[in-house]
Amino acid sequence: MSETSAPRAFQDDYPDDLSHCYGCGRLNEHGHRLKSYWEGEETVATFRPRPYHTAIPGYVYGGLLASLIDCHGTGSASAAAYKAAGREPGTLPPLRFLTAALEVEYLKPTPLGVDLVLRGEIVEVKPRKVVVAIRILAEGVETVRGKVIAVLAPEALIAKLMQRPSARDG
Amino acid sequence: MSETSAPRAFQDDYPDDLSHCYGCGRLNEHGHRLKSYWEGEETVATFRPRPYHTAIPGYVYGGLLASLIDCHGTGSASAAAYKAAGREPGTLPPLRFLTAALEVEYLKPTPLGVDLVLRGEIVEVKPRKVVVAIRILAEGVETVRGKVIAVLAPEALIAKLMQRPSARDG
Repeated sequence: MSETSAPRAFQDDYPDDLSHCYGCGRLNEHGHRLKSYWEGEETVATFRPRPYHTAIPGYVYGGLLASLIDCHGTGSASAAAYKAAGREPGTLPPLRFLTAALEVEYLKPTPLGVDLVLRGEIVEVKPRKVVVAIRILAEGVETVRGKVIAVLAPEALIAKLMQRPSARDG
Repeated sequence: MSETSAPRAFQDDYPDDLSHCYGCGRLNEHGHRLKSYWEGEETVATFRPRPYHTAIPGYVYGGLLASLIDCHGTGSASAAAYKAAGREPGTLPPLRFLTAALEVEYLKPTPLGVDLVLRGEIVEVKPRKVVVAIRILAEGVETVRGKVIAVLAPEALIAKLMQRPSARDG
């Protein structure tokens, strides 16, 4: 399969210096490398937890579910901001978002051993703030509901990070 | 140092079958193995993130911070429930709590490379519901604030898990 035929994830368009996140950075070899995409007006990501991502045996650890919501949320925020600004994804200066607040409601235990699907709805888009509502589904059943309030990373911080001679994890 | 002289963490008193959590299970060799203790009326845990637990370079990944709040919250809930019931920690049937809702507010970036201290305040204790407010401090500076609404794990679920011939991660 040629590179050009594969759809690009939101996270594939983050600049290298901003791609070290444990949850979604493509350059973090220890991390989850979550990938988020548009599907119509919704954003979607799929993740299969490892067997050791357990809470009580047989069910997924809540911290991982919160993490996935966090990263799918900031990724969705970035994609929504590019879209609202009429800009091509990944163009500079980067519209990279940080989480200001995260809310997670665990509706029922999430089973281990199946793909989890995250579906994001863009609730609000302002130049410096995006709100994303996210659902996690396991075999079609909604088990978790969350909300991410994401704020645009300050330009000074971005500039500082992108000036580092070699940005590596940590 | 003899075993008896070391203080026991809340998580040390979880039954084996309920000790596989990625965040705080002492039997999960891949996980964080968070340990929580009483310090007066507060609950305290300390955790040093790994260098790869990064968000943007130099700062801790928000998903990890949410995870730590989650596990310190359910651990604190369990400890508070035993205390409120006048029972010795770890006595059966286990008072093990699950997270119903988690709220996290990221006040400022949390630096990597230092110990993080989690401080929990027991806000509400009912037989089946405990609310814990948690702060994360890095070098004395509060960077994250969270709240965990924890509910008692249903007896039927606990009974089912404790009947498994060999409960292993996942």
